[in-house]
Amino acid sequence: MTTVLINLSNRHIHLSESDVEALFGADYTLTKKVDLLQPGQFAAEEVISISGPNGTIERVRVVGPTRLATQCEILTGDTYKLGYQPTDVPVRLSGNVGGSAAFSITGPAGSVEKSEGLIIARRHIHVNPEQAAELSLADGQSVTVRARGGKGQTDFHDTIVRIQSGAILECHIDTEEGNAAGIGNGYQAEVIT
Amino acid sequence: MTTVLINLSNRHIHLSESDVEALFGADYTLTKKVDLLQPGQFAAEEVISISGPNGTIERVRVVGPTRLATQCEILTGDTYKLGYQPTDVPVRLSGNVGGSAAFSITGPAGSVEKSEGLIIARRHIHVNPEQAAELSLADGQSVTVRARGGKGQTDFHDTIVRIQSGAILECHIDTEEGNAAGIGNGYQAEVIT
Repeated sequence: MTTVLINLSNRHIHLSESDVEALFGADYTLTKKVDLLQPGQFAAEEVISISGPNGTIERVRVVGPTRLATQCEILTGDTYKLGYQPTDVPVRLSGNVGGSAAFSITGPAGSVEKSEGLIIARRHIHVNPEQAAELSLADGQSVTVRARGGKGQTDFHDTIVRIQSGAILECHIDTEEGNAAGIGNGYQAEVIT
Repeated sequence: MTTVLINLSNRHIHLSESDVEALFGADYTLTKKVDLLQPGQFAAEEVISISGPNGTIERVRVVGPTRLATQCEILTGDTYKLGYQPTDVPVRLSGNVGGSAAFSITGPAGSVEKSEGLIIARRHIHVNPEQAAELSLADGQSVTVRARGGKGQTDFHDTIVRIQSGAILECHIDTEEGNAAGIGNGYQAEVIT
């Protein structure tokens, strides 16, 4: 049986370098608060607020380092707080933001309007090429992640495998998915191919 | 294929008659805001606040009519807001509150301390005896509810059948479970026995 470490993602934002400067000031660089499991990724000290058509969420954590394109990953429940219809915000893999929802961001030094970049993260598994070969997993493959937590057995089908050099084997589901299953950070779930 | 109507439960509270009086005043009776699908059940105009060891949630909706024992059903995410460890608040079927978590309630006319009654609702299906016989469902049976929503396919195993005279066929999952699957009120899910 293959198992995978689960960690829950709460809402967070990845920022481009130019958006970091627009939000925090010229030549500003993010400050690491805590390393995340995937190499080089970190939760930053910085938080911003995001706004949609009819609402704002304060204190959204920035995850570094900077990326080519700004991308904010929210929870399904957040769509209501921001004034979207749930279907306005697409469920996407990280990095695939073309045509996703528009939103605005406010930081201590300014605001930026984004014509796209707001998504609900599709659940996924990070794995490196070597381990993927051992486990017979292909990039983009859809697998089932089985949790037996406090809510009973919950099967998250359609969890996407992402093969990246140097990745640590880890499954990212969001806070609502973890709560729905009654599991938390560190849970070891079964992977069924 | 058997399908079942899904409706999502947000946090809510059922109150005993004596707790209604303690919270809202002597001889107070709840005011219906909107009928729920199950016969006789209604969302009341009244809201109260609930508190745990380290936090309060305002505007928790009262669901009527009154019951013999006060019972508050919260979301897993609420346990953090109230200052519980998630495992402090048991996942239970409605009505089964013995030894569940302690909490306090505040209304416009006063507060009450409850030594038990705080639970996370176990997902369940309401069905009447006639329809249960047609569908070959037994009271207390654990079935799988399959959703193919915006998050991909999600299987909620361990969903409990509750047979009650006059019940309307309906599956109650909580807001976090619905969000985890990317489905909302009115979704028709598959039931697998």
